[in-house]
Amino acid sequence: MSLPVALTMGDPAGIGPELTWRVWKHLRESGRAFFWIGDPALLGPDVPYRVIRHPSEAAACFAESLPVQVQSCPEAVYPGRPSLHNASAVVGSIEKAVRHVLAGDAGAVVTNPIAKHVLAEAGFPYPGHTEFLAALCGTVGQEVMMLACPELRVTLTSIHVSLRQAVESLSIERILAVSRLTAAALRRDFGISQPRLVVAGLNPHAGENGIMGDEEIRVIRPAVEILQREGLEVIGPMPPDTMFSAAARPRYDAAVCLYHDQGLIPVKTLDMAGGVNITLGLPIIRTSPDHGTAFDIAVGPGEQGKADISSLLSALGMAHDMACRRAAHDAQTA
Amino acid sequence: MSLPVALTMGDPAGIGPELTWRVWKHLRESGRAFFWIGDPALLGPDVPYRVIRHPSEAAACFAESLPVQVQSCPEAVYPGRPSLHNASAVVGSIEKAVRHVLAGDAGAVVTNPIAKHVLAEAGFPYPGHTEFLAALCGTVGQEVMMLACPELRVTLTSIHVSLRQAVESLSIERILAVSRLTAAALRRDFGISQPRLVVAGLNPHAGENGIMGDEEIRVIRPAVEILQREGLEVIGPMPPDTMFSAAARPRYDAAVCLYHDQGLIPVKTLDMAGGVNITLGLPIIRTSPDHGTAFDIAVGPGEQGKADISSLLSALGMAHDMACRRAAHDAQTA
Repeated sequence: MSLPVALTMGDPAGIGPELTWRVWKHLRESGRAFFWIGDPALLGPDVPYRVIRHPSEAAACFAESLPVQVQSCPEAVYPGRPSLHNASAVVGSIEKAVRHVLAGDAGAVVTNPIAKHVLAEAGFPYPGHTEFLAALCGTVGQEVMMLACPELRVTLTSIHVSLRQAVESLSIERILAVSRLTAAALRRDFGISQPRLVVAGLNPHAGENGIMGDEEIRVIRPAVEILQREGLEVIGPMPPDTMFSAAARPRYDAAVCLYHDQGLIPVKTLDMAGGVNITLGLPIIRTSPDHGTAFDIAVGPGEQGKADISSLLSALGMAHDMACRRAAHDAQTA
Repeated sequence: MSLPVALTMGDPAGIGPELTWRVWKHLRESGRAFFWIGDPALLGPDVPYRVIRHPSEAAACFAESLPVQVQSCPEAVYPGRPSLHNASAVVGSIEKAVRHVLAGDAGAVVTNPIAKHVLAEAGFPYPGHTEFLAALCGTVGQEVMMLACPELRVTLTSIHVSLRQAVESLSIERILAVSRLTAAALRRDFGISQPRLVVAGLNPHAGENGIMGDEEIRVIRPAVEILQREGLEVIGPMPPDTMFSAAARPRYDAAVCLYHDQGLIPVKTLDMAGGVNITLGLPIIRTSPDHGTAFDIAVGPGEQGKADISSLLSALGMAHDMACRRAAHDAQTA
C-alpha cells in the first residue's frame, strides 16, 4: 500500500483550510489518502475529521473522516486577516510534514499557500517555501522549480530574479544541473525511462545563428552537446515561440526554460487552474498548488467560498503518483 | 463594394504559389476577392486564372478564376531551390502591391513568405518585408508588429533583437508609441471604439514592487500613467505569466508586450497555425501568414503538398476585414 501524503496548513487566514476539506470530500473515496497538519477549529462543525498521532493511521479512516495531525494556532483566526502570531504554527506544520517524509512515514509533502510577507515580518528567515524545505532537508541550493499541467512540463534555470539577472546568470553549469535533475526526476518520479528534453533558446528564433544574441552559441548549444554526450535525449536551443505549440509539445517530456516567464507563460496560458508546482532537487517529493493565499476570497470555518480546488487537487494527485512511481523505481533499482 | 486585397508572390520556390491557388479555391465563392501578383507558370495547368491589368478587374472574375497581375520570374523555378536571379521578381511583386494600395486601388497588402538570406545575397538592402514596406511608404521607423489569433492580440515594443537588447532598449517613449499605435489600429481597423489595453510587466510577477527588477517602477508604470491621463483605457504592468490565461484574455483587446517571445509564446501556444502577423504604423494595411517559405515541403506547379493554408487564409480574411472597417471608419470621421 502506498504512503499517505502530508498536506500542510498554509496560512490559516487564507483559502488553505477551505480547499483542504473540499479536496478531502472530493478524494475520500479515491483511496488516495492524505492527512492534514493543521488546526481542526478551522474546519467547521460539518466536516468529519479524525485526529491522528501517526501518518500510518490516515489510510484507514480516510473514507470516513479527514485525518488531522493537530497543529494549533495560538491566536484566533479571522479569514482574510493573517496574523504574525500564527506564523509559528504555519512553520511548525511544514516542519512536521518534512519530518514525516524524511522518516519514511509519508510519501510526499504538499504545501498549502503561505503569505511570505507575513512570515518575513514574524522573523522567518527564508524567502519562501522552497528555500525553507531545502534547509530542512539539508540540500540548500539544489532546488529546481518544475511547473506541470497535463499538456506540458517545464523546469526553470532561474526563478525569482529580474529578467536582466536571469540573462546575466545563465551558464553552461546551470543548464547542465537543471537538465540532469529534470531527466532524473522524469525517470524516478514520472515513470519515463528514456526522458526526452528540449532546452529553450534565450533570444528570438534562438538567436538565428548569432544575429540576435550569442547566448545560444556561447552557452546553450555547448551545454546541450555535453548532455548529448552523456547519453541524454535532448535537443536545443529551440526557438522559444514555437516550442510550446500543440504540434511541438508531444515531442518532449519536459522543456528546460531559461527564465521564469518563458516557462510559466505557456503553462498558465494553457491551464491556469490545473498547474502544479513541483520542487525538484530535494530528497523528498514536494508539490504545491499554483496559487497564493487569496486572502480576498477566504471564508470562515466550514463555509464554501469561491476558491478553485483544481490546482490543489492536481497537486495532491501529482504527489501521490510521484510517490508511487518513486517507490516502484527505487524497489527496482535497489 | 470593398476593394480587393493584393497578395504578393513571395519566394517562387517556396510554398507561396501552392498556398495561393489553394486559398483561392477555398475563398472563390466568398466574395472576398484578392489578386495575386506573380508568375502564372507557377500555378500549374489545372488552376484557372485570369490575367488582369488593374485591381478593379479582380472582383468580377474571382469566383471563376484566380486574378493574376503578371510578375514573371526571369529564371526557371525549382521548388525548394531559391534563386538569386528571381529576387527582382520577388521585390517587384511587393512594390506593385504597395503601389496599388497607396493609389487606393487595393484595400490591403498580404505578403507571401520571402527568403531573407536569398534577397540579402541578391543585394536587397532591407532585413525583411516590414522595413521594405516602411521604406516604400515613406514611414521608416514607425512600424510595430501585431500578432493576432482569434483568442489574443499582442503588439511588441521590440522584435528581432536579442533579449538583452530588448531589455536595455525599453523606454517610456517606446511603450507610449506602441500603445498609442495599438489603440489607434483597434479603433480604425478592428472596429473597437473604446479599446482596452494591458501593458505587460518585464520581470517575474511584474517585479513585485521592485524586488525582482525595477523596470516596472522606472519605466512601465510611468508610461501607463501617461496613457491613462490621455484617456486611454489601459492597465499594467501586468504579471506576464498570468495575463494570457483564458480568464484574463477577455478583459482586454490587445496586450502590449515588451519582448518578442513574451508576446509570441502565448499566441503560438494557443494557435500555431492560425496566427496572423499585422504591421501597424504604415499608411497601408498589411498582414502576412505567420510562417516562412518552408522550402523543405515546397512542391511543383499545381501539385498539392503538405503546406497548411490556415495562416494565409487567416491573413487574407483579416486584411479584408481590416480594409472594410477602415473604409467605414474613415467615411464616418471624414
